[in-house]
Amino acid sequence: MNKLELFPVEGIGALGKGDDLAGLIAGQFSLEDGDVVVVSSKAVSKTEGNVYTREDLTPSPFAHTLAERTNHDPWYCELVLRESADIVRMAPGVVISRTRHGFVLANAGVDASNAGGEGRLVALPKDPDGSARRLRQDFLDRTGKNVAVIISDTFGRTWRVGQTDLAVGVAGLSPLRDYRGEKDADGRAMSRTCLAHADELASAAELVRGKAEGIPAVVVRGYQCQGDGAVSETLMPADRDLFR
Amino acid sequence: MNKLELFPVEGIGALGKGDDLAGLIAGQFSLEDGDVVVVSSKAVSKTEGNVYTREDLTPSPFAHTLAERTNHDPWYCELVLRESADIVRMAPGVVISRTRHGFVLANAGVDASNAGGEGRLVALPKDPDGSARRLRQDFLDRTGKNVAVIISDTFGRTWRVGQTDLAVGVAGLSPLRDYRGEKDADGRAMSRTCLAHADELASAAELVRGKAEGIPAVVVRGYQCQGDGAVSETLMPADRDLFR
Repeated sequence: MNKLELFPVEGIGALGKGDDLAGLIAGQFSLEDGDVVVVSSKAVSKTEGNVYTREDLTPSPFAHTLAERTNHDPWYCELVLRESADIVRMAPGVVISRTRHGFVLANAGVDASNAGGEGRLVALPKDPDGSARRLRQDFLDRTGKNVAVIISDTFGRTWRVGQTDLAVGVAGLSPLRDYRGEKDADGRAMSRTCLAHADELASAAELVRGKAEGIPAVVVRGYQCQGDGAVSETLMPADRDLFR
Repeated sequence: MNKLELFPVEGIGALGKGDDLAGLIAGQFSLEDGDVVVVSSKAVSKTEGNVYTREDLTPSPFAHTLAERTNHDPWYCELVLRESADIVRMAPGVVISRTRHGFVLANAGVDASNAGGEGRLVALPKDPDGSARRLRQDFLDRTGKNVAVIISDTFGRTWRVGQTDLAVGVAGLSPLRDYRGEKDADGRAMSRTCLAHADELASAAELVRGKAEGIPAVVVRGYQCQGDGAVSETLMPADRDLFR
């Protein structure tokens, strides 16, 4: 196994709609073939214009109900509901929903922090796998380097306190590393071992990104990418979901 | 932010009860103050003698029932039940339990792969936070270096396919990095952001450890440890658990 290195990409200022995100990242950091660029979903959403203000949103009656139960404001709740395909749990102070993409997370991923100003709300990218593929092509066009891209967001967990970053979009690597059928160190067949490498890469990147510092991307060097795929492969099929 | 480096510790052979795990790791890798040593729970359990054979286990009637439902053997199921405080879900082929420590995972963490031979089963360490504290002291005694220790194991997730490594024991760092009350890049107070750094470090380490190669430890260099704590802090309290 090789060592792994993770570099924060610093020096990128506030992002807005239409900004060339890949160009800005490549301008601050010298990419190499095989690097994995982990980009925060917020940076992607800002450059794609997936940002809302109160004027964009008219809270429905149920958004007002949700606002009362969660202590959020009604505009925020309206966007949460627009992003949700399903409410998985509602409890005082918290709503956990399944987004239209199939991600299960608090507030459907809608975030008011680091949104670019008071009253602004950022939603997840509309097609994160598509955004990742586009960024990967942009990196190739601007630098000639063949990199993989992961778009990450922050998820809570069942049964554990605290959050971790997971992948919401990938391009240029398979999100899963499947060891099923391979032999262990004793020569015994391993069963049921399929590691979520894209999620582990997103988590690793969070460690050097921090929350408040405005670092939209982290470069992982030394990871051996295999295959190509989409985050949608990592969504639990309904017939295997024991926690609907 | 600094860069982060992760190094696999190679060249450690098969482990057995009573082996000096810290000494073996320090003999293969030159540790520095501030390093985080991520050790697999299996390596810890083997050196602590937390390994079972069929002779150690007499399957109960319910273990036989579980074996039929999960396609495991009855001895394996007997150990799963001995390690479990609660069965969270049973379904054909799968049992998810809450261990006596409070971890929720498949088969209560009992593993037959890389167990040191056919018919052998490895359970989680009995007191992983205690094991981590002991290893941290062992590293200090053998090298004079002040390192943090994370003991990791592999967990499935609700709603996502594939597994990631999480922390089951820590020493010398706080498992959570709590940003609540700090300001975001816009000067806006961040709410509800508490990152599970010990889990993210465990996930990052898995990326350079692999499954079959027999690498019991990974050294993380460049992470700024804060505080001290125990993994038990990261277990969701029952009154906040929406998925019991």
